[in-house]
Amino acid sequence: MWDSSSEEAVLEDPCQPPSELEKKDPRSAAEMPPVGEDGKTAAKRGLLERLSSGEIIIGDGGFVFALEKRGYVKAGPWTPEATVEHPEAVRQLHREFLRAGSTVMQTFTFYASEDKLENRGNYVEQRFSGQKVNEAACDIAREVANEGDALVAGGVSQTPSYLSCKSETDVKAIFRKQLDVFIKKNVDFMLAEYFEHVEEAEWAVEVLKESGKPVGATMCIGPEGDLTGVSAGDCAVRLVKAGADLVGVNCHFDPTTCLKTMKLMKEGLEAANLKAHLIAQPLALHTPDCNKQGFIDLPEFPFALEPRLLTRWDMHKYARDAYNLGIRYIGGCCGFEPYHIRAVAEELAAERGFLPVASEKHDAWGGGLAMHTKPWVRARAQQAFWEKLVPASGRPYSASFSKPDSWGVTRGDKDLVQQKETTTENQLKEMFEKQKNITGMEA
Amino acid sequence: MWDSSSEEAVLEDPCQPPSELEKKDPRSAAEMPPVGEDGKTAAKRGLLERLSSGEIIIGDGGFVFALEKRGYVKAGPWTPEATVEHPEAVRQLHREFLRAGSTVMQTFTFYASEDKLENRGNYVEQRFSGQKVNEAACDIAREVANEGDALVAGGVSQTPSYLSCKSETDVKAIFRKQLDVFIKKNVDFMLAEYFEHVEEAEWAVEVLKESGKPVGATMCIGPEGDLTGVSAGDCAVRLVKAGADLVGVNCHFDPTTCLKTMKLMKEGLEAANLKAHLIAQPLALHTPDCNKQGFIDLPEFPFALEPRLLTRWDMHKYARDAYNLGIRYIGGCCGFEPYHIRAVAEELAAERGFLPVASEKHDAWGGGLAMHTKPWVRARAQQAFWEKLVPASGRPYSASFSKPDSWGVTRGDKDLVQQKETTTENQLKEMFEKQKNITGMEA
Amino acid sequence: MWDSSSEEAVLEDPCQPPSELEKKDPRSAAEMPPVGEDGKTAAKRGLLERLSSGEIIIGDGGFVFALEKRGYVKAGPWTPEATVEHPEAVRQLHREFLRAGSTVMQTFTFYASEDKLENRGNYVEQRFSGQKVNEAACDIAREVANEGDALVAGGVSQTPSYLSCKSETDVKAIFRKQLDVFIKKNVDFMLAEYFEHVEEAEWAVEVLKESGKPVGATMCIGPEGDLTGVSAGDCAVRLVKAGADLVGVNCHFDPTTCLKTMKLMKEGLEAANLKAHLIAQPLALHTPDCNKQGFIDLPEFPFALEPRLLTRWDMHKYARDAYNLGIRYIGGCCGFEPYHIRAVAEELAAERGFLPVASEKHDAWGGGLAMHTKPWVRARAQQAFWEKLVPASGRPYSASFSKPDSWGVTRGDKDLVQQKETTTENQLKEMFEKQKNITGMEA
Amino acid sequence: MWDSSSEEAVLEDPCQPPSELEKKDPRSAAEMPPVGEDGKTAAKRGLLERLSSGEIIIGDGGFVFALEKRGYVKAGPWTPEATVEHPEAVRQLHREFLRAGSTVMQTFTFYASEDKLENRGNYVEQRFSGQKVNEAACDIAREVANEGDALVAGGVSQTPSYLSCKSETDVKAIFRKQLDVFIKKNVDFMLAEYFEHVEEAEWAVEVLKESGKPVGATMCIGPEGDLTGVSAGDCAVRLVKAGADLVGVNCHFDPTTCLKTMKLMKEGLEAANLKAHLIAQPLALHTPDCNKQGFIDLPEFPFALEPRLLTRWDMHKYARDAYNLGIRYIGGCCGFEPYHIRAVAEELAAERGFLPVASEKHDAWGGGLAMHTKPWVRARAQQAFWEKLVPASGRPYSASFSKPDSWGVTRGDKDLVQQKETTTENQLKEMFEKQKNITGMEA
Repeated sequence: MWDSSSEEAVLEDPCQPPSELEKKDPRSAAEMPPVGEDGKTAAKRGLLERLSSGEIIIGDGGFVFALEKRGYVKAGPWTPEATVEHPEAVRQLHREFLRAGSTVMQTFTFYASEDKLENRGNYVEQRFSGQKVNEAACDIAREVANEGDALVAGGVSQTPSYLSCKSETDVKAIFRKQLDVFIKKNVDFMLAEYFEHVEEAEWAVEVLKESGKPVGATMCIGPEGDLTGVSAGDCAVRLVKAGADLVGVNCHFDPTTCLKTMKLMKEGLEAANLKAHLIAQPLALHTPDCNKQGFIDLPEFPFALEPRLLTRWDMHKYARDAYNLGIRYIGGCCGFEPYHIRAVAEELAAERGFLPVASEKHDAWGGGLAMHTKPWVRARAQQAFWEKLVPASGRPYSASFSKPDSWGVTRGDKDLVQQKETTTENQLKEMFEKQKNITGMEA
Repeated sequence: MWDSSSEEAVLEDPCQPPSELEKKDPRSAAEMPPVGEDGKTAAKRGLLERLSSGEIIIGDGGFVFALEKRGYVKAGPWTPEATVEHPEAVRQLHREFLRAGSTVMQTFTFYASEDKLENRGNYVEQRFSGQKVNEAACDIAREVANEGDALVAGGVSQTPSYLSCKSETDVKAIFRKQLDVFIKKNVDFMLAEYFEHVEEAEWAVEVLKESGKPVGATMCIGPEGDLTGVSAGDCAVRLVKAGADLVGVNCHFDPTTCLKTMKLMKEGLEAANLKAHLIAQPLALHTPDCNKQGFIDLPEFPFALEPRLLTRWDMHKYARDAYNLGIRYIGGCCGFEPYHIRAVAEELAAERGFLPVASEKHDAWGGGLAMHTKPWVRARAQQAFWEKLVPASGRPYSASFSKPDSWGVTRGDKDLVQQKETTTENQLKEMFEKQKNITGMEA
Repeated sequence: MWDSSSEEAVLEDPCQPPSELEKKDPRSAAEMPPVGEDGKTAAKRGLLERLSSGEIIIGDGGFVFALEKRGYVKAGPWTPEATVEHPEAVRQLHREFLRAGSTVMQTFTFYASEDKLENRGNYVEQRFSGQKVNEAACDIAREVANEGDALVAGGVSQTPSYLSCKSETDVKAIFRKQLDVFIKKNVDFMLAEYFEHVEEAEWAVEVLKESGKPVGATMCIGPEGDLTGVSAGDCAVRLVKAGADLVGVNCHFDPTTCLKTMKLMKEGLEAANLKAHLIAQPLALHTPDCNKQGFIDLPEFPFALEPRLLTRWDMHKYARDAYNLGIRYIGGCCGFEPYHIRAVAEELAAERGFLPVASEKHDAWGGGLAMHTKPWVRARAQQAFWEKLVPASGRPYSASFSKPDSWGVTRGDKDLVQQKETTTENQLKEMFEKQKNITGMEA
Repeated sequence: MWDSSSEEAVLEDPCQPPSELEKKDPRSAAEMPPVGEDGKTAAKRGLLERLSSGEIIIGDGGFVFALEKRGYVKAGPWTPEATVEHPEAVRQLHREFLRAGSTVMQTFTFYASEDKLENRGNYVEQRFSGQKVNEAACDIAREVANEGDALVAGGVSQTPSYLSCKSETDVKAIFRKQLDVFIKKNVDFMLAEYFEHVEEAEWAVEVLKESGKPVGATMCIGPEGDLTGVSAGDCAVRLVKAGADLVGVNCHFDPTTCLKTMKLMKEGLEAANLKAHLIAQPLALHTPDCNKQGFIDLPEFPFALEPRLLTRWDMHKYARDAYNLGIRYIGGCCGFEPYHIRAVAEELAAERGFLPVASEKHDAWGGGLAMHTKPWVRARAQQAFWEKLVPASGRPYSASFSKPDSWGVTRGDKDLVQQKETTTENQLKEMFEKQKNITGMEA
């Protein structure tokens, strides 16, 4: 367990060391529930049932970043056509998260709305159609969920249409198309995630509620609130009032910042006498230098973020802090690889009563190093070593902080109107010129 | 192409921009060679044939690190039982490297010698046997190699037996057991890699030569030479004299350091009037602060190396520098993920005449960002931006350099004698105590 | 002038370039005012007259830090016995600040209260007496002030007595002893500085007001307010109500942080409909990582702060930002050397109408480099170069941030009760032990 | 004493703790030697006598940098007209170094050759004449030397004439003019310092030898040797053969780098069977990232070097390492302030048998903090704390390393031909343009 004794928040009841725990394989025959024809498990307990009984739900990591590095997603459009083009790659990643301890398989439907699949020259809508991409995502998620005791969450995210100032009716119609697939494929619950504007998130929640299934909603905002200035607390209140059973944040900021936002959301809900379950799915990237827009504004986004990647030990601290704050749906977003989720599951193993399957390849706190051939590496097989280590960057020409872009462009700005056509050379040149003036970069 | 105009080494013949290149899918039917029953491709050109004709061979990345993060390899023993336990995970990683541009599928047989599979409590030898692990590795590598125009390399690495001062006969017997599998499975060539002592590497080469197949050999040394003080140049000379067709370095140091070592090896061979092909497979981790033992000695090894991870742009520079130095087998080791190999392949696309398959998800130099919804991110869709960017660490409490461990323990030291038994609590305590005295760490 | 065009606050009326300005020597005969017998200049305009007419007052830098480095002040007690022991050293430093552009010579009477001069074994009270130290300080300040058009400020600072919970009567009696000297020596105005508790600062102001002279008051607090939790705005309000003509902050934080605090103070005064002149005298040390106690809590305090030292270019930005915020008494504290004050004076030369004398040895924005022998150094003789440069630390083992001590000890704690006796070995051992537990440092 | 127990070089005979030592005031009446009319002390032991008897000579710090910050020297020309314009400022700095432990007062005659005093528009030669500047420097140095047991060294440095390819006769004539003053003023010994080319240094030594006094010579080179490629070892050999009694390095590099160079010089002398005393006077600035030209090439030179400044604790290590290497004339150059020299003197107090006068304001290893009011600051009053501390930079936007300029311009290049005329606007523009192309800086 992460030792927070020297920090402000002290856990009062220290719990059993995880090393004492049995590694429980969720795939073991005895526990495997019967599976119906539509892929629905007859016996699996639902999301709200689990949360209400105090169970800790562990989410998965960010698929677009992980699959971009594996060669199946294109940075820029970030669309999930891999579900159709390379299902084996998507399936493998789901499986790794399941083994790592995830109790939710979120359908790989990020940015799978029709308007996004045809934005700026994207070929996916025309070649495959949004319906096919969303259906394939559901099938893969269900297949892997049934290899363990996991639930399937159908996910929607913010749309280019909203950014381009389309009407509520238009935007809701887009969400409804994805929802139709989720209902047909009978996912276990809904998750509206990655919203910069609370208004659009409310619309999404309202549509998803039509399904009758539990609905979660996360915004990609920091402690300063949404892009139009609505405070974090008010965002939470509005989402719960719109019908969300589960609210929180995902993406855009590191765990430390996300938990600050979560604290504000929690306080907002308490002040409004509202109840909801809490969810956090932050970046696995350190972002102490971000402004309101999060990591998108960092010059390193998205191709030079490596030095910011969290270690597994950072994840122990995140999991403990999130738990102490009362969050019970604890997952991740961009940057999270399976070993990050495993670290979350290992930190909370005592509370959950079992270790994830993938811990068969990972003894607690570096214990596996006891098998290393070099004695000085064996000497690192201890919690005290890893917990205190502040890793060097190995990059003497790198600073700690970057200055984020600050274009100040928000919804309604002509630069945010999306288009079906590929960005032209002229449009790009204009952008390069603008960038030069804002950041002082030499072309 | 990496712009080295402001650096010392200037490429004399600037070549066509890769954007002009056709993305050639090595899996296209027309090119797919017939495959025999034993998995051997009838028509594939061999390694030496390719190298002699000037073809650039692109290696793959490090499997143990990549699969550790995916949950299939245990850090500490670092053994490859996943070939038996989870072949689908190993296959998927091979496939990603193939798509990224690798022309070699190296069998996942690192540390698959019998003495390692039973060292310090490792269960693999007893549960599966080394033979089974090695055979499974060959089958998977061949299966994926045949999905493209790739060769299979059978790999051996340094042994606990040598560290424990076993005899030449004993050590060679161990290599020979792996070789038997490689011959049976008819791999295309042999690769002896990750040797800290040139003597053991010579023994490995001598054994592998018995196969009649081409043999490559790489040492995990830096510019200071091997652990017994043999210079990098002399190491190269001795390996070629022992029979290696291909010599170089792998692992332990970053590309910059490895290329310094390669320069010394090349000069050593020239001084001795010897000819050999050159191979480099460095870390994808920055290690400017390492001493002779490489990254093993860094306190961050192996669980807090994240900030040191190279970006894809670092890889462009590496590929160009390696090419300019005359190296024609260019690959990677620990830390390399598929997108790193793709960057190598993209940098050398003009020289090779084609782009890797996975570039369908990656336009040159961030070009895909032209499809991003945010205008300031679209403004990063240019080489000038990424080539100059020095990424921030996002870690204000991190320094650039670490002080490596310097236990000074080398072959023959009692701490390096390996054992079948699990490391005992007492042995660990002794190590912790020693570490405290050496590094001043508080227990 | 500092170019803030790319920053949020933009100066609307760009002013004349300083290079056009005449270097006006305040010591030139024509301007030198007649000097009376008691050292008072008959014709010098007073502080409030100057401030009310819009004149910019430039303070001096921190004497204890500067003289500690020159060998005349002891870090720990930080007392100003150098006025008696080595008046030539104190006089020289005053003179350097005068030449650099300071319009105030503050008496070197920091920590010159009787209770401090005899605290923890300090010999000064007994050997010289506080009266003698304070008188000598006044004489030196007046002598140098009269070499130019500068005013003399008599300064008092927080007392050990207050920390030890002595009564208002006792603490005021201590301030009154120093005041008696200032009245006798007829200083031009009073400055109560370096207060962590607003209550003690109020007491000081009330005593100093008895003189009938203008009184300024600065607290060493950050945006979080004083150590008892009084907000920065409320501190300002209470000080003005107590009689201060001039309020602000000094010491403990860097310019950026101090200006944040000043903004809060200004807003507090406006909300209370109070008017006062504003003063800022921050550190010349970067302190982004400090908590409420400021740089005292940094492990680097006071003997390893070098890497944090501001450059002259940082000072240009500070001067401009302070001016834009409406502050008209702009000076410095610990870390400020004469060249830092000169940079402030150079940045504001257009507004003031003249350059400081010491600019005869410093052309604007590095212009003097045009005389360098090396061409690439001559190429640095331009504002564009220095304004954009982010200096490297040259320290690869150093991080950007430290974790400040957080003992949480405040007034009333037994560890804060001061004593005449030297700290005993046992007391020190206790401290070392406490520190080990708090910071994890190894003894 | 610096604890080097955890480092490679271990001092065999640990010596008494300095705290046991009596603080010996060199100015105490009993010891003060009689002083002759010309300022020469009748009884002072000479340089060689002292060195031969094993005495440690402590040099002073760099005057041009220290006085630039105090407002008396112009960066760019770096000439010492302050000896005439503000003798009180020069005298005060000498006095501070004397108090700090310096046993040599080096005349402030750096760059005081005639050709430098009139280079590129410099007014000094015409307004005062080189003779007057040099004479005033000698008088001030002698005056302060006689306040203690210090010697006066007459210093010469490299000339613009040599850079502009003037003849040996011309260059020697320039040195001889300064020598005439030193002979007239009867300095105790000669020091030729800051030479980038060994040939010019030889000429200087040959001229200075004409005086019959001891001659020291230091080059501003690193381990790579002089700018024409003469190795450090060969430089030392040639200087001793030219007549130098004392050889070594000064300026341009940090202590670590300078001691590497000194090791090479020492080995060169031993290999040539030559004997000479060794002297080191490095920067007080960290320069791990410098190339052959030293800190001149860093973009931070000379106005943004603050973060690189050494702490007093760095100086303890330097003094110990220099002593262990056999160097017995240990001083400093640019960046050294009096407290740095005091730290050298404190580290070597046991070997010298006394502490410097200024230690009356500095207890060993932060001991004075025992008198601080805050308990957590008192807890820093110990060697263990300061010796291990790696100070943070407080600069999250700063990297550790800079890329030095690499113009590759050397003696004979037209850009190095010096001129009497002020650099013209056109010449500056050309430089700015060149710089942009070399460093990629935007104008």
